[in-house]
Amino acid sequence: MAPNSESRQGRSEVPEVVISRLPQYVRILNRLLEDGIQVVSSQQLGEKLQVTPAQIRKDLSYFGRFGKQGRGYSVHDLLERLRQILGINSPWNVAVVGVGRLGRAILSYPGFNPDGFHLVAAFDLNNSIVGDTVGGLVVRGMDELDRVIDQEEISIAIVAVPVDFTQNVVDQLVACGVRAILNYAPITPQVREGIRIRNIDPVLSLQSMTYYINDD
Amino acid sequence: MAPNSESRQGRSEVPEVVISRLPQYVRILNRLLEDGIQVVSSQQLGEKLQVTPAQIRKDLSYFGRFGKQGRGYSVHDLLERLRQILGINSPWNVAVVGVGRLGRAILSYPGFNPDGFHLVAAFDLNNSIVGDTVGGLVVRGMDELDRVIDQEEISIAIVAVPVDFTQNVVDQLVACGVRAILNYAPITPQVREGIRIRNIDPVLSLQSMTYYINDD
Repeated sequence: MAPNSESRQGRSEVPEVVISRLPQYVRILNRLLEDGIQVVSSQQLGEKLQVTPAQIRKDLSYFGRFGKQGRGYSVHDLLERLRQILGINSPWNVAVVGVGRLGRAILSYPGFNPDGFHLVAAFDLNNSIVGDTVGGLVVRGMDELDRVIDQEEISIAIVAVPVDFTQNVVDQLVACGVRAILNYAPITPQVREGIRIRNIDPVLSLQSMTYYINDD
Repeated sequence: MAPNSESRQGRSEVPEVVISRLPQYVRILNRLLEDGIQVVSSQQLGEKLQVTPAQIRKDLSYFGRFGKQGRGYSVHDLLERLRQILGINSPWNVAVVGVGRLGRAILSYPGFNPDGFHLVAAFDLNNSIVGDTVGGLVVRGMDELDRVIDQEEISIAIVAVPVDFTQNVVDQLVACGVRAILNYAPITPQVREGIRIRNIDPVLSLQSMTYYINDD
């Protein structure tokens, strides 16, 4: 995992918090482009993202020079460059493991495809639903994991299995060559170096709001 | 929304990114307490949270003085203080709006209650499921929103309705007195000042991982 280094050299030396902000930049820039806006200042970007202009300039400085002093950024060029940096200028195949209520919601979520994340395979631990079709995909058993991940060139998995099964499923995915995992269970599974994991955690989100609505 | 100010005075002047990190501190401190650890250094905390010790000291400095130079923090005291700051030292009543696949998964998610978020009411736009019992709650129609939110003293809502309905539902919740909203739809609803909103966005999470698994 990347430490909060100030170095501008290696990929691994850019702070993870900076990387985690870039997709929001991409989203804002996409909207500006749709609105026909061609140039944007760090001030304007900062207002949209609720960070200081200095923070935006600092974030972008990790990746070289963008824009011209006092002239703002070309929306198109900055967007293309950030998409390239993030590796989202080409599509990714994604597997979903866990086809319970949450997995079904994920498989029917319309937001993945437009952003280049193609859900191409679904797996479940429960053999009684293996063979069912959900969201256009046939649910497969875990015994097919290795073959399908290899065949479909899947690098990313979304894990929506009960908490007690999560670590084991994550381990299996990593053993099959998956390198990035989005986990919906309220734990932080352990993965070896080089494997990325993100946890969807609604409690953390709730806890970051109570501060603002408490006692005022 | 809080600007990234350096001021240490007002509640609204603490950077939102700092607030958003505090729940992770709480989680780590809870684990340390469970493990019987009584004192922790900013170095140790930083390792667990993947931020620099300086960042941790800076984050905590917004709220006054914690710990003693060179002696680390009392896990118990820091935890209690952070829970108090975040307003999570007493429970919150929460409504869920949208009882489709995702809403059902949310209502059966076991992680809310232990952290003091009590799901006490469920609503849906679709009258055909109003009256059904899901996760121990009777699904109510939107016409009951105002009365139930008032009666149950609900300040927080989780919104899991289709994207086209989200802004309207958010507006209704705010009109009924809800002050913090966790939204699962892949849009950023607009809310007036003083209302907090967080969006669960799996695509942003995925996009923050591809950087690390691209071309290496």
